[in-house]
Amino acid sequence: MDILEPRPFVIGLDLGGTNSVFGIVDQRGQVIATNSIKTQTYKTVEDFVDAGVEALKPIIAKVGGITQIKAMGIGAPNSNFYRGTIEYAPNLTWAHTGVVPLAEMFSTRLNIPVGLTNDANAAAIGEMQYGVARGMKNFIMITLGTGVGSGIVLNGQMVYGSDGFAGELGHVTMVRSSEGRTCGCGRTGCLEAYCSATGVARTAREFLLSSEEPSELRNINPEDITSLDVSIAAGKGDKLALSVYEFTGKMLGEACADFATFASPEAFVFFGGLTKAGDLLMNPIKRAYHDHVMPVFRDKAKFLISSLDDASAAVLGASAIGWEL
Amino acid sequence: MDILEPRPFVIGLDLGGTNSVFGIVDQRGQVIATNSIKTQTYKTVEDFVDAGVEALKPIIAKVGGITQIKAMGIGAPNSNFYRGTIEYAPNLTWAHTGVVPLAEMFSTRLNIPVGLTNDANAAAIGEMQYGVARGMKNFIMITLGTGVGSGIVLNGQMVYGSDGFAGELGHVTMVRSSEGRTCGCGRTGCLEAYCSATGVARTAREFLLSSEEPSELRNINPEDITSLDVSIAAGKGDKLALSVYEFTGKMLGEACADFATFASPEAFVFFGGLTKAGDLLMNPIKRAYHDHVMPVFRDKAKFLISSLDDASAAVLGASAIGWEL
Repeated sequence: MDILEPRPFVIGLDLGGTNSVFGIVDQRGQVIATNSIKTQTYKTVEDFVDAGVEALKPIIAKVGGITQIKAMGIGAPNSNFYRGTIEYAPNLTWAHTGVVPLAEMFSTRLNIPVGLTNDANAAAIGEMQYGVARGMKNFIMITLGTGVGSGIVLNGQMVYGSDGFAGELGHVTMVRSSEGRTCGCGRTGCLEAYCSATGVARTAREFLLSSEEPSELRNINPEDITSLDVSIAAGKGDKLALSVYEFTGKMLGEACADFATFASPEAFVFFGGLTKAGDLLMNPIKRAYHDHVMPVFRDKAKFLISSLDDASAAVLGASAIGWEL
Repeated sequence: MDILEPRPFVIGLDLGGTNSVFGIVDQRGQVIATNSIKTQTYKTVEDFVDAGVEALKPIIAKVGGITQIKAMGIGAPNSNFYRGTIEYAPNLTWAHTGVVPLAEMFSTRLNIPVGLTNDANAAAIGEMQYGVARGMKNFIMITLGTGVGSGIVLNGQMVYGSDGFAGELGHVTMVRSSEGRTCGCGRTGCLEAYCSATGVARTAREFLLSSEEPSELRNINPEDITSLDVSIAAGKGDKLALSVYEFTGKMLGEACADFATFASPEAFVFFGGLTKAGDLLMNPIKRAYHDHVMPVFRDKAKFLISSLDDASAAVLGASAIGWEL
């Protein structure tokens, strides 16, 4: 990033299962303009790209036209950074049965470089570019949303591995016994099955069943309990809800202790809805990490919550890929 | 490595708890000459370095003097690559209570660059420089010796993490229940407590106690059983010994499945005494990996045994650091 950068903007595309949000971002991480389309309205990727290019036109015009844009970054599920493709994405109608060269398609249409990676990697790059990980060379981003994702930065570089899919820490096995919860990936006992938003809601349901502890969560139909309900109850001091966060944080802390043996990161950066609980989640994480990490790593890593604004973080993260192209 | 390299040799020092072996190595990984001293004969690090420099003189002379030497690499326990220090090494009389700047001390005496890292990282660099990992950018080296060590290479670079100590995969927690075995690191349930040479011997003792299966291992005093005994018995088809390898390989394969979520490596490279068992160990590893790894990583990583000659591998690995300085 140079103050004399002749093309001072990048495009970020946060491609989600419901909405695809396009944003124009400047070098300081300001989102200048956004526009969005519905991801699944389109039957083919060609139609999706057509609609995307149309949606981009007015916001590109706002900053003086495409000559002002350096590159475009896309954060999307099931993304292969090396190939610029979305591959067999179960939740995308136009990409669930094959390999879609989305980066190349946008690049051809816009005539700028386009990079694509999964949303957690995009979040990590965004955090490094604009957020709490500025200046860090070794950190691990953990996104706590519908699933648990991760983006790993080592030696100042994203870790993509041999195939572009590295950094799936939501799928380390935390419970090896036959009682491990079934995970969306088809296996059992994964971190994601416990520490995602849906995992937290499930933990609450299990705790309600297995104890007599009074809880305001008992006023909700068990199947309707969400992680937000648990968070609100915990915020009011509801003991059962607090124990759900204690359980969730403990497992995340133990997982981070394992991650430290791999990367010895300077920081773990957490992002996503569950982090709204603040210390209710972070304190159990830190305690469990301290208790379980190898002594050589103890008291070294920081535990941080993303500083990126929720509404724009995904677009910002995606856009940050653009600076690296 | 250039064919016109004006200084065509490096020094490798394999610094072990018993012996310290110095070797002169050429660019093709040929060990030209070696000499060794007893590591623990010396009360201070100064005395150790003095003796080391004396031991080096005749072998440096053999290749035409120090002007022919590019650099020196040291593989040693409790090493900090960034600082070139050995830190609180419990098994080294002259380094167990403090931080010893060993790289700088040899560098000052020899007037060449000196790098230092732990033996598993050295093995990984050696494998990348001279062995089966030549040309690989993403692989994980796992050393199965008295302990379980690891060296991780991503994007073609060693992973040292924020503090120089990354890559301690022998200490991921594999058994989280209260029944996890005590590990030398002071924690419980670590991979090393099960899959090191001592872990294998312990598994054999446990299996002998918990079953009635006839086994030639019953002819040995349980406390005297070594992993070599188990290997020999397994090689003869001894069922109990085979089940020990099955157990060990299964745990290693499950651990590798977790490591894949982190790094998606091109290969896992195994090194050390236990690999002598060949397919008896490697087949259960591969089976467990296949059964437990996330589908996106399945059938991608290779499982390889180090191609470096056992006798020289540690010196070769250490020397390989020299080419990177």
